[in-house]
Amino acid sequence: MAGSSYGTIFRVTTWGESHGKGIGAVVDGCPAGLPLSEEDIQAYLDRRKPGQSKFTTARQEGDQVEILSGVFEGKTTGTPIALEVRNKDQRSKDYGNIMDVYRPGHADYTFDQKYGFRDYRGGGRSSGRETAGRVAGGAVAAKLLESLGIRVYAYTRSIGPIEIATERMDLAERDKNRLYMPDARAALEAEAYLEQLMAEKDSSGGVVECVIEGLPAGIGEPVFEKLDANLAKAILSIGAVKGFEIGSGFGAAAMRGSENNDAFAAAGRGGASPAAVKRTNHAGGTLGGISDGSPVIFRAAFKPTPSIARPQHTVDRFGREQEIEIRGRHDPIIVPRAVVVVEAMAALTAADLLLLSMSSRLDRIQAFFGTGE
Amino acid sequence: MAGSSYGTIFRVTTWGESHGKGIGAVVDGCPAGLPLSEEDIQAYLDRRKPGQSKFTTARQEGDQVEILSGVFEGKTTGTPIALEVRNKDQRSKDYGNIMDVYRPGHADYTFDQKYGFRDYRGGGRSSGRETAGRVAGGAVAAKLLESLGIRVYAYTRSIGPIEIATERMDLAERDKNRLYMPDARAALEAEAYLEQLMAEKDSSGGVVECVIEGLPAGIGEPVFEKLDANLAKAILSIGAVKGFEIGSGFGAAAMRGSENNDAFAAAGRGGASPAAVKRTNHAGGTLGGISDGSPVIFRAAFKPTPSIARPQHTVDRFGREQEIEIRGRHDPIIVPRAVVVVEAMAALTAADLLLLSMSSRLDRIQAFFGTGE
Amino acid sequence: MAGSSYGTIFRVTTWGESHGKGIGAVVDGCPAGLPLSEEDIQAYLDRRKPGQSKFTTARQEGDQVEILSGVFEGKTTGTPIALEVRNKDQRSKDYGNIMDVYRPGHADYTFDQKYGFRDYRGGGRSSGRETAGRVAGGAVAAKLLESLGIRVYAYTRSIGPIEIATERMDLAERDKNRLYMPDARAALEAEAYLEQLMAEKDSSGGVVECVIEGLPAGIGEPVFEKLDANLAKAILSIGAVKGFEIGSGFGAAAMRGSENNDAFAAAGRGGASPAAVKRTNHAGGTLGGISDGSPVIFRAAFKPTPSIARPQHTVDRFGREQEIEIRGRHDPIIVPRAVVVVEAMAALTAADLLLLSMSSRLDRIQAFFGTGE
Amino acid sequence: MAGSSYGTIFRVTTWGESHGKGIGAVVDGCPAGLPLSEEDIQAYLDRRKPGQSKFTTARQEGDQVEILSGVFEGKTTGTPIALEVRNKDQRSKDYGNIMDVYRPGHADYTFDQKYGFRDYRGGGRSSGRETAGRVAGGAVAAKLLESLGIRVYAYTRSIGPIEIATERMDLAERDKNRLYMPDARAALEAEAYLEQLMAEKDSSGGVVECVIEGLPAGIGEPVFEKLDANLAKAILSIGAVKGFEIGSGFGAAAMRGSENNDAFAAAGRGGASPAAVKRTNHAGGTLGGISDGSPVIFRAAFKPTPSIARPQHTVDRFGREQEIEIRGRHDPIIVPRAVVVVEAMAALTAADLLLLSMSSRLDRIQAFFGTGE
Repeated sequence: MAGSSYGTIFRVTTWGESHGKGIGAVVDGCPAGLPLSEEDIQAYLDRRKPGQSKFTTARQEGDQVEILSGVFEGKTTGTPIALEVRNKDQRSKDYGNIMDVYRPGHADYTFDQKYGFRDYRGGGRSSGRETAGRVAGGAVAAKLLESLGIRVYAYTRSIGPIEIATERMDLAERDKNRLYMPDARAALEAEAYLEQLMAEKDSSGGVVECVIEGLPAGIGEPVFEKLDANLAKAILSIGAVKGFEIGSGFGAAAMRGSENNDAFAAAGRGGASPAAVKRTNHAGGTLGGISDGSPVIFRAAFKPTPSIARPQHTVDRFGREQEIEIRGRHDPIIVPRAVVVVEAMAALTAADLLLLSMSSRLDRIQAFFGTGE
Repeated sequence: MAGSSYGTIFRVTTWGESHGKGIGAVVDGCPAGLPLSEEDIQAYLDRRKPGQSKFTTARQEGDQVEILSGVFEGKTTGTPIALEVRNKDQRSKDYGNIMDVYRPGHADYTFDQKYGFRDYRGGGRSSGRETAGRVAGGAVAAKLLESLGIRVYAYTRSIGPIEIATERMDLAERDKNRLYMPDARAALEAEAYLEQLMAEKDSSGGVVECVIEGLPAGIGEPVFEKLDANLAKAILSIGAVKGFEIGSGFGAAAMRGSENNDAFAAAGRGGASPAAVKRTNHAGGTLGGISDGSPVIFRAAFKPTPSIARPQHTVDRFGREQEIEIRGRHDPIIVPRAVVVVEAMAALTAADLLLLSMSSRLDRIQAFFGTGE
Repeated sequence: MAGSSYGTIFRVTTWGESHGKGIGAVVDGCPAGLPLSEEDIQAYLDRRKPGQSKFTTARQEGDQVEILSGVFEGKTTGTPIALEVRNKDQRSKDYGNIMDVYRPGHADYTFDQKYGFRDYRGGGRSSGRETAGRVAGGAVAAKLLESLGIRVYAYTRSIGPIEIATERMDLAERDKNRLYMPDARAALEAEAYLEQLMAEKDSSGGVVECVIEGLPAGIGEPVFEKLDANLAKAILSIGAVKGFEIGSGFGAAAMRGSENNDAFAAAGRGGASPAAVKRTNHAGGTLGGISDGSPVIFRAAFKPTPSIARPQHTVDRFGREQEIEIRGRHDPIIVPRAVVVVEAMAALTAADLLLLSMSSRLDRIQAFFGTGE
Repeated sequence: MAGSSYGTIFRVTTWGESHGKGIGAVVDGCPAGLPLSEEDIQAYLDRRKPGQSKFTTARQEGDQVEILSGVFEGKTTGTPIALEVRNKDQRSKDYGNIMDVYRPGHADYTFDQKYGFRDYRGGGRSSGRETAGRVAGGAVAAKLLESLGIRVYAYTRSIGPIEIATERMDLAERDKNRLYMPDARAALEAEAYLEQLMAEKDSSGGVVECVIEGLPAGIGEPVFEKLDANLAKAILSIGAVKGFEIGSGFGAAAMRGSENNDAFAAAGRGGASPAAVKRTNHAGGTLGGISDGSPVIFRAAFKPTPSIARPQHTVDRFGREQEIEIRGRHDPIIVPRAVVVVEAMAALTAADLLLLSMSSRLDRIQAFFGTGE
């Protein structure tokens, strides 16, 4: 079944495997008139590329994106925007035991079960390289949101047991360290932790936190197309994500109503539907699955990189038990590179639901078409 | 935008408000030939109905479901199955301050922002009563899954700070207590905790855990229609859910790869794509978003019931600050009634993705149509 | 597969069989604030009901529609609108040979092939009665379009070889004769033709023509969701329709470019995208699949009613050849009752594409959200 | 709105403009294990390329397709198949008056209305060149269908007033003349007619007929996703198509039931759902929108090429009336090049509905998963 498209009226379709000819995305449904350049998209791709730190793989992807359609005289035309990154390095390699053996924690076994065989080179479609297509598409969504006063940003909240301290949080700090942590001290501790793991041929998980600022109230469609429900799907669709929570999240399950409820205060505006503001934001920016005008805040839990150099028990495709050691250099943590992937999926979700929300009220539709009384 | 349908080829569409004429669901795409009766669906609805314990509302809904189409001579015909529950009690009531005032933690404010006005009677479409449609639809999905050897069940994992102990877990115990906890001792503790909260006019959140057993390997579609991604959306679409995690979930973020990876063992079968089994199940039954043949295990975090009898600060629709006390009897916990809602959404998701997975391999399609060599 | 929903953001889902408990529709995605009553919908249903003339079946359906949700204080709330018509007459009947024998021109054989068995009572889901759900849903779409200055109307263009004369066409005449022909003389001729066919135990086909007036330019989405493409699907989804054409249609295939091209004239407005008008309308209101501001005009070809009282050769479900005579009273022509069905499908299509078109231009989106410079 | 994807589980997404960097398609949902090469796709593209006859444009597109993903070791992997044709010739040209003036019969005006501006180079996205993406995608669908014993083919049925004679029809003749007419004498007459039109600076429309052979009974989903309804949409989505009819089509509207009904005969098989055969095929292969096992036969009406070298009245984007003569060489007929486009859209539709039909019966699903009794 076709599973590589995301979104209803603002939709991205991605393609490409780790060691194929390239990776790409088609962004369809982007409104006409948005200024868009290859640089806009490259800036996002550069944030996910490897080789940025000693904790990320050395392979020089040097991904250069090309816009093949949908942009004319520097602006989107409303037609599909094809984005493409050709793979530089497709040398034939010795994939050795990877070809026949199911790596623990990877999708080798399930791809074989589902499709009967698989492109085993570097994980094929199940490789983290697939996310380049998401990021390219997400860059377009983010540009659209910016033109509407909406900003999406994410950062590393924790790496293994090391979490940022809310009181030390400083977003400017995020881009100064290679782990995308907005807390300089936590970043130092996390670096030390990761070095220790590398020495032990092990890896770590972590948590990414993401914020959507400036989203107007009223976005999200009851009852199945809620904003938080769509964000959850978007985030869980990223490989290695095992959990999603919004606002107080799992913490809310242990709380009392009197603690968790957000009181409203007047926002100072009059009119038929005056804007209220929540005094706190345990809800994380949604009520009943609809944005409430507060920042949307959610978290994604990433499992540890499954590729570790230790011997692991497994099975090959002939049903024989094997021991495997994953060779080559692998990131002990994928979280820093995943930060921009989370942003991309959040931007794609917000852009689609924002546009979908335009048809919720007859009076606004009449004003739009100039046909009301 | 149309947001009340769920599923691609096995699809449920729900309708109805808390105090309207009724609640219903249309199940479209159910394969022909499934034995189905009103009793099958009633059994699910009875599990979510209120008045089952002192912790759930006294209102006698007495929901009786009627099958209006799609079943002939006791079997589904392949055409839409319309399910309907008429509301018994639609007396005009004094909705008093609820009509104009935004209840903290409810969707009153966001519905007004989105739609310009709202059906304020009992929360209208944003009421928990909406879930009756999901449960009716989910009952059909569960029946279909059972006919294919797949079983979905859920239970209360925690209420506030009280969690079941894995070593005491006994599924038979679940239906013996009113909190749907598969641990008698935890249930007793939770009952005491809830009584204390009620005395304090407060409420509690909790966690529901759900298991899908017997799902074959190969279900879920890379890269955006993964099994876990769809489950996450399904679960977050339930009102009051603030988090979703699968397998080791948020715990995985603090783990090492060597701890979290599940080793494979041979399953004893031969052939081209032999079945392997995972020795552990930290993954929660999916690898790369595709079912791996192990039980799928996930958890949903529910926030505390927002309706509490304490005074709360808020705003009315004229922008004036108000204090509100939610009158009437409200559940101090919705988790026990939500258990069957989680099962329903899991069943709907599994049924749709299972049917969608049938087109993944040419050899199987050729065998299906009898046209291969 | 779920096939009973139509539309992307304004969506109708229908259910019900000919002799089941009822027929219904769920209209999801209707904007909030539209005045809507049961009378609005009943007026449409009354136009398709049988027993209006000697050429339509005598069965007294007396369909009374009930709105079960989605309307509060006389206006749509933005949530699903459930519409229901209970079948009055469900007496057990002797379905005799219909039960086992495949009626020529009906879907008996294909339903058995597809689903393994079928609800044989009156054709089940493949009965023309299914269209009541479409008409109920279409009535809501038409009301929405009217509130935006858009009008959809259809009429009988031909019955068998009798066609209306363009020079005599008078829309006021349409509702004065039972065949919905806007030409009194053609209506008389067609009545005589149908009486002759009835005497010969035979039936007739015909053509319905439909006009959408007031649709703004810019509706329809290249390249697969064009306005005319969606209309074609909507119309062909009506049972008994065998052809669709827009503007000069099949006639265009025999024409020259110099005849068929519509010249533009200035519409008298200035500005960056000034409105032009076409001097002729061979295109039928679309260019490149996008509405051009002219009336949209299309035609639907209906086959003759397959139920005729003459003996016909066929096969039963045991593979035995049989002769069948369709008993009971059947319309010799379904076209007059289908006129409102065509209107309904056109209205559903136009409403959905109109709302979808709102996101085509960034400048308009910025104005909508009040966020542009 | 995203409008460049077609299909539900077998889905093609196309991109590209006439004079942009390239044209492409992403085919998602193709089952794994299908042998597929660039030659398979090139063979289809070659049939739509210009310069094949004196009646088609001289521009040497020389489209060479490249498969960028989704194929490994010569077989599809089940992941998205990216197909790309780079445009050879992107020299900057003098687009002169085309840039500002709305060509009659083209989408210039409606694109400006919808999007606020347009890529005016060669028609941009509304150019016939867009169909290369459809044809590339359709080639994959046709290969899939072939592997299941299903064959799709089309031919020119008429050009202007010249129609093939059924008694002279010879499919082998189709590929011997440049007009794709399976009747040598009609082809000669049509050539003479077209030469006359060219001399008169005029153009012609025509009709394409298409046949799907080998489609099993049971394909198509009541009530909105019928086989014929989806074919109608697919065909009307092709630029220049103004009409669609299946089986006896518009002719059926003038027929009697006794003429148009297809009698059934026994097919010689026994069993619970024995195959019947229709003695005639006025229905064109569907009953109730579901395939009946007979060949599916439908026709598409193409309007005359709107680009003619005669002076035409029109308007520019500043609202000023203008006279325009379309310069350059243009085909006086697009029908011969459209034959393969019709095949492509038919194959895409049949492939998607075929796969969707697999979930219609529980007994077959149980057999598929090996879980029934």
